[in-house]
Amino acid sequence: MMVLKKAALPKGFKANGIACGLKKSGKMDLALFYSEVPAKAACLFTTNKITAAPLKLDKKFLKVNSGFQAIVVNSSNANCLTGKSGVKDAEETAKTFASFLNIKKESVLVNSTGIIGKRLDVGKIKNASGNLVKGLSAKGIMYASKAIMTTDTFEKEVTVKLDIGGNKITVCGIAKGAGMISPNMATLLCFIMTDANIALSALKKALKDSVDGSFNCITVDGCMSTNDSVMVLANGEGGNKIISGGRDYDNFSKALHYVCLQLAKMVVRDGEGATKFIEITVDKAKNTEEAKIAALAIANSNLFKTAIYGENPNFGRIASAVGACGIDVEESKLRCKVTSLKKKDIKVHVEINTGKAKSVIYTSDLTPEYIKINAEYN
Amino acid sequence: MMVLKKAALPKGFKANGIACGLKKSGKMDLALFYSEVPAKAACLFTTNKITAAPLKLDKKFLKVNSGFQAIVVNSSNANCLTGKSGVKDAEETAKTFASFLNIKKESVLVNSTGIIGKRLDVGKIKNASGNLVKGLSAKGIMYASKAIMTTDTFEKEVTVKLDIGGNKITVCGIAKGAGMISPNMATLLCFIMTDANIALSALKKALKDSVDGSFNCITVDGCMSTNDSVMVLANGEGGNKIISGGRDYDNFSKALHYVCLQLAKMVVRDGEGATKFIEITVDKAKNTEEAKIAALAIANSNLFKTAIYGENPNFGRIASAVGACGIDVEESKLRCKVTSLKKKDIKVHVEINTGKAKSVIYTSDLTPEYIKINAEYN
Repeated sequence: MMVLKKAALPKGFKANGIACGLKKSGKMDLALFYSEVPAKAACLFTTNKITAAPLKLDKKFLKVNSGFQAIVVNSSNANCLTGKSGVKDAEETAKTFASFLNIKKESVLVNSTGIIGKRLDVGKIKNASGNLVKGLSAKGIMYASKAIMTTDTFEKEVTVKLDIGGNKITVCGIAKGAGMISPNMATLLCFIMTDANIALSALKKALKDSVDGSFNCITVDGCMSTNDSVMVLANGEGGNKIISGGRDYDNFSKALHYVCLQLAKMVVRDGEGATKFIEITVDKAKNTEEAKIAALAIANSNLFKTAIYGENPNFGRIASAVGACGIDVEESKLRCKVTSLKKKDIKVHVEINTGKAKSVIYTSDLTPEYIKINAEYN
Repeated sequence: MMVLKKAALPKGFKANGIACGLKKSGKMDLALFYSEVPAKAACLFTTNKITAAPLKLDKKFLKVNSGFQAIVVNSSNANCLTGKSGVKDAEETAKTFASFLNIKKESVLVNSTGIIGKRLDVGKIKNASGNLVKGLSAKGIMYASKAIMTTDTFEKEVTVKLDIGGNKITVCGIAKGAGMISPNMATLLCFIMTDANIALSALKKALKDSVDGSFNCITVDGCMSTNDSVMVLANGEGGNKIISGGRDYDNFSKALHYVCLQLAKMVVRDGEGATKFIEITVDKAKNTEEAKIAALAIANSNLFKTAIYGENPNFGRIASAVGACGIDVEESKLRCKVTSLKKKDIKVHVEINTGKAKSVIYTSDLTPEYIKINAEYN
């Protein structure tokens, strides 16, 4: 398995990014990912009961279609809480690109990220769509990667190349954060493209397992988004014998998990206002669920997060968060180790000592900059 | 019912506050409340599984004793995560005051608040105890009220006078905040004294109901403390016919609830770094529990709290918090009104429109000052 810290598109994929005018700053805000042949798609969406309009559309398309060729993403406006008009706007977006790409609208998956509750200016998207399609190329991924960003300060990209039965396969993922980040499905946007030839059921299983162990293990502010989506397109252009199980599946799944975990960690590292990257391990718990509940309780405690920001060790705040989270815990059995708070990367290791299960959660600190970003965001 | 916005002790009570040297600043840090005759006591403690040493001691005393005459409170050190030594220190404190007051140690309830995980310097408390007892007086409540403060910026006091069967009865409460404030039992320290003559079972019921509708409806940072305690002492010196039910109970209970709610609101108003006081009403929910879950989800959302701080209306963050909290909610039925964000007092009114139940939660905004206080606290 070879790892590239940049996005490099697999065979048969092209991408592009452009400024269509949604961002007042004039920065890029519209991205397109395109597969030359119909690709299988596995998607996971937020578990928030309030979901953005494009998610409603995508879920409909995923029911009726099996070959997907395009993913459109706009940043700056989440197209959420926009009612029936919002869904129409998302469909209008799909139709526009379908027409330019000469495919059916159900082959276009639509995504939005940004402010909630404002009508999307779909006219701007339509005006820019021709140029966006015209500029599609393998190298265009570098523009797409920028165009999906909101408060992100750097692009999140990773590419893995692996061998499946003698064929070189590529798994390329890009993601965006950087606020409203809390587990329970991705809590961000992530697009993964692969030229692997893989059965849809295997692709779905590999994605679910990968997301459970990556995007569902991060939290920045404990706030679950309405737009979270992780999408993987597999177009089969790598030429390998179809993956449905066995060692090939394990290798592919490992690569996909690696891509997801790297992107998830980048999202935390770029958490709004973050100055620290914190890995919290809760060990020797009764079961994995309890370990995760405790690790998340620590990760989402504002008092813990401010203590880390202040480089001010405070075991009391860790113990208090664990004690309040609802799991069985005894003061006399509780153990905790924290690495030096002076460094950027910090590891917190907590032992509950009531069993053998373990869970790892990644988070960032809570800083005045987080408040500044979110007090002024609009 | 007559309301005083200051603490005025009921008949038969005295109090005092002193600086014993626990606070490096030299400010007052040790308080004593004293009843001349044995009083009935009803107490509610944190539901955090990690509890401070004095709570362990108090629970023991409450099991074996029925007449209480003193409450000792030190600020600056929570005496929590201090193991068996911590409980010994708390017991040593009780013994010391019992000896000076010529009562048994089981009649002394002990409380601590401040930093977690550091051994309490009980020597300082012992050295100051003689002077603290000597200075007991009815007016000493103004010193006691100061001595229980940690990061609080003002004293929280309220007194209610009411008539019970022709007798004038007083209910006097004082409380401290100001961080680690989240519902599920008091989440702070609150001491209430009354000269009402009331049956213990009635006193317990009145306290539980009052706390459910006051201290359990506030949150500053969603962090549940290890030391939260609400204590009421009723010494019967008011001379009324014993209260056990009926109109007298209703009147007393109403007064107690009023005292608790006023103190709870003061705690929120003095929330660490707070610039806004926010009342969140979730209405027309399926049941009260779901209404409370939703109101708390909004109140504990960092994104909501920073938007209020920034005076930046953002209905999306309210809807997103409600959508993620686990209750049934439909986007098309959701309604929300927010009063002007330019004012200090803000009301948020959300309608779920799936039923008829309502819940009100009080909270504050999240500010750079909160982070400063908690990054530097030690």
